[in-house]
Amino acid sequence: MAAMTTSQPTNPLVGPLLTDFYQISMAYSYWRHKRHEVEGVFELYFRQNPFGGEFTVFAGLDECIRYLESFRVTDTDIAYLRTLLPRAEPGFFDWLRALDASDVTVHAVREGTVVFPKCPLLRVHGPIGLAQLLETSLLNLVNFASLVTTNAARMRLAAGPDCRLLEFGLRRAQGPDGGVSASRYAFVGGFDGTSNVLAGKIFRDLPVSGTHGHSYVQAHRSREDLPAIAADCILNGVDIAEAALQWRGELGYEEGAALHEGEFAAFVSYALANPTTFVALVDTYSVLDTGLRNFVTVALALAEAGFEAKGVRIDSGDLAYLSKEARQLFDRTADDLDAGTYGAGRGSLAESLRKCYVVASNDINERVLLSLRDQGAKVDAYGIGTHLVTCQAQPALGCVYKLVEISGEPCLKLSQEPGKTTIPGAKACYRLVGARGQMLLDLLVPAAHAAPEVGERVLCRHPFDSSKRAYVTPSRVLELHAPVFEGGRRVGASENLRELRAYCQRQLGEVREDVLRPLNPTPYKTSVSAELFSFLQDALQRHQPITELT
Amino acid sequence: MAAMTTSQPTNPLVGPLLTDFYQISMAYSYWRHKRHEVEGVFELYFRQNPFGGEFTVFAGLDECIRYLESFRVTDTDIAYLRTLLPRAEPGFFDWLRALDASDVTVHAVREGTVVFPKCPLLRVHGPIGLAQLLETSLLNLVNFASLVTTNAARMRLAAGPDCRLLEFGLRRAQGPDGGVSASRYAFVGGFDGTSNVLAGKIFRDLPVSGTHGHSYVQAHRSREDLPAIAADCILNGVDIAEAALQWRGELGYEEGAALHEGEFAAFVSYALANPTTFVALVDTYSVLDTGLRNFVTVALALAEAGFEAKGVRIDSGDLAYLSKEARQLFDRTADDLDAGTYGAGRGSLAESLRKCYVVASNDINERVLLSLRDQGAKVDAYGIGTHLVTCQAQPALGCVYKLVEISGEPCLKLSQEPGKTTIPGAKACYRLVGARGQMLLDLLVPAAHAAPEVGERVLCRHPFDSSKRAYVTPSRVLELHAPVFEGGRRVGASENLRELRAYCQRQLGEVREDVLRPLNPTPYKTSVSAELFSFLQDALQRHQPITELT
Repeated sequence: MAAMTTSQPTNPLVGPLLTDFYQISMAYSYWRHKRHEVEGVFELYFRQNPFGGEFTVFAGLDECIRYLESFRVTDTDIAYLRTLLPRAEPGFFDWLRALDASDVTVHAVREGTVVFPKCPLLRVHGPIGLAQLLETSLLNLVNFASLVTTNAARMRLAAGPDCRLLEFGLRRAQGPDGGVSASRYAFVGGFDGTSNVLAGKIFRDLPVSGTHGHSYVQAHRSREDLPAIAADCILNGVDIAEAALQWRGELGYEEGAALHEGEFAAFVSYALANPTTFVALVDTYSVLDTGLRNFVTVALALAEAGFEAKGVRIDSGDLAYLSKEARQLFDRTADDLDAGTYGAGRGSLAESLRKCYVVASNDINERVLLSLRDQGAKVDAYGIGTHLVTCQAQPALGCVYKLVEISGEPCLKLSQEPGKTTIPGAKACYRLVGARGQMLLDLLVPAAHAAPEVGERVLCRHPFDSSKRAYVTPSRVLELHAPVFEGGRRVGASENLRELRAYCQRQLGEVREDVLRPLNPTPYKTSVSAELFSFLQDALQRHQPITELT
Repeated sequence: MAAMTTSQPTNPLVGPLLTDFYQISMAYSYWRHKRHEVEGVFELYFRQNPFGGEFTVFAGLDECIRYLESFRVTDTDIAYLRTLLPRAEPGFFDWLRALDASDVTVHAVREGTVVFPKCPLLRVHGPIGLAQLLETSLLNLVNFASLVTTNAARMRLAAGPDCRLLEFGLRRAQGPDGGVSASRYAFVGGFDGTSNVLAGKIFRDLPVSGTHGHSYVQAHRSREDLPAIAADCILNGVDIAEAALQWRGELGYEEGAALHEGEFAAFVSYALANPTTFVALVDTYSVLDTGLRNFVTVALALAEAGFEAKGVRIDSGDLAYLSKEARQLFDRTADDLDAGTYGAGRGSLAESLRKCYVVASNDINERVLLSLRDQGAKVDAYGIGTHLVTCQAQPALGCVYKLVEISGEPCLKLSQEPGKTTIPGAKACYRLVGARGQMLLDLLVPAAHAAPEVGERVLCRHPFDSSKRAYVTPSRVLELHAPVFEGGRRVGASENLRELRAYCQRQLGEVREDVLRPLNPTPYKTSVSAELFSFLQDALQRHQPITELT
């Protein structure tokens, strides 16, 4: 092994023991019968797109490589495994102790690629004892990463390109790592940032933002909770509380409305501490009666001091209605300022109100995003938590890791359920692109066979249904796999999050809209080559027992 | 601070930065205005039981205490936070650097207790700057833990007490920690063990088990893949392959049925390596045509060598039908052995077949468990993955962390949505038990008030609906809260997983069946004392603005 430093998994829990016990007992059985060095090929793939959709974004590859690079069984691991396998021969533990992942080679689809069922996302070649041991961790690292990235990508498509999307889900995530992974992969899928501070610290590319919570407002009960020392209220020579109260009078807000004085004190004190990032949460008591108005007065006071308030966040109620009311209040007040209603020279403050944005953040999911867009809601940014990070619409992706070849021979797994039959043999996957740049289909070809060629007609078949066939003459042929791990090391450089995110968005731009659409999307086809089809049919004929009904 | 060693969170990602950024910016605002030492009380609770049910099991407390005990902001944390708050005064970071959690006191419900909406699970008293910083991590640690424990408890109720339940979900879990947490809390909720090796290593009480996968069967293609060296086939003087083939003949299995020879080789080699824990996965090709029969021959050969096969696992197909077929095959063969059909003296082998169990493991959830029980499926153990660990039926619990008191004064949070209104003030929760030992209701009382007394009639009110009232004369009064963290240290000893699991099962035994039942369960009531009701009504009258419709 080279003496270079290896990359470590982000989560220190990731390692050889993050696995199902049967991987260990299978490895022991192989080792016991001296079959652990037999060469095998495993493919990691899924059978169905999540969320009722017809596409998936592949993610998690970088963590898989970190796991492989650092794969070592420690002494305490061994001590624990001995308790689980008390009858195992000691030589097995010596083998485990010396094991690293340098004997496997991994080919993979590029992280951030839009992928479809049956396409191998990872193809692992290596001695079967070792390759088997990798199954559970690789699945764990790919399944959730791809699921969240896909979920985020769907929300980005639903919200449109101009809306800011912020991930706010840490508190509801499935454990600490559920939160940190979700923050990272939501960004890859098209979000703009997260509230998760640790994720920002770990992944330096990840923008972190946030405002204040309801408790901050509640913690201020009256104007007595304004900063006690007069100097603390002054920003660039402007007493923010006093200036805001003056605006309250000028805007006529005292008449009728029940402005909450604790909320007012909270907004003033928060704006004083964070004048460049002031977003007010306006629904602690009532958005329309007090929240928005208190915000406007403080925002105008800030503007007098030369700072721009960022906007408001609405966390309950009718988001379509309340966002429109907020927008209207800001714009109408800005118009009045421009018109000189509040005296000459105040027009310079109008722009800061017009630029104020509205963040909505209560129980947002893909359907709510679509519906709010339909209703013309005036929401500039969404904070999305639970539905994003736990993937509420479908909280698991069903990737599997199947043995497809052993000792160079393709092998088959039948199933009581036809959809679960494995396509045998190590396979390459080619994306065939048409004359107008449109993705036509993905084609699975035995890895040892030649790639389809540009301009040549190729027969593409449904793997199981012999009636479904198509001739395709591709204008471009993209090979989806590349080697990513070999000799114990990563092949090529790892990508940073911004590159991944940009690549993922470009990928989504290349997929046909009817495949991406939320309602009744068109399935994208993954076919097999004519040779692979014949091989599969032969194997099924030979191995599938004919049931005897008596 | 004491120099004693502190307990660390299981997941090294857990620490002060595992939080939403707004906690930091709020803490800064408090600090900036010298309000960070103001005493506050926060309560952590949920508003609705998960899974359409009427109960929840509280879990995650031990990790919360580990988080609190080890709460320290590191130098690298500070360096990162400075980039997020470039305008903050340096003194804030000095304050953060010196901060630990010794100034907060936490009262909590005992981990493993059955709890209901509105009951504070944790009550945190302390300086508001610090107490605010704890919100996100505490929520993260309680939400998923309680959700999985509740999910596991529901599955245990559905499966009945005699069935073995095994957690198999790591590969589909939401990240590595989603898997490890799920393994732990599934056990607390009533599972018997997990396949997750790391969870077993970390939580020593957690039984780990597993058998082999489809790939192990596929990796053996014919009898040529039986152990090559004859001596490796011998167990206690019995050649397992040869003995099994002899049984094949005696049982008449060659006739008609297409036994898969690769599967046979796989079972033999796995049984040789793991003779005390042999469970055969029988659905790689066909359960009825080959899987069960290959298993029976190998099990009988093992029995001749003095070992008992454990049973079979079925991972696809009609689990009700296939499990009955398996049971029938085992029992009929045992009967024949007893009857001397296969020669005298073979009856001693019958018992090992009768004891063989059937594990079912494909896409099991609560409804499938109920349905299989209804159908009289002969399943002795279930391996449950995705639905358990990702809580597919509802992947998030909605615990919140609300400020209820500041400077000794109760405080209120209204909401655009009435159900989200917070009940003000630090509250104790008492469980009132009736004369026949039945739980009557939980009563919220201001923490400073006296507890209800046994034998004294107490008026219990719905917090918001003035028409709903009940007089309760409890025969037993259980105070649900106890101090768990004080002066920077855990109060009392931490419980091990077996104690937690046993306590949780006792708790479930005390809840009325109509509250626990899966279909249309009866809601259990959480009431407020008359004083708390009046206080809340007054506060609502004073603070809830009357909307103006014009």
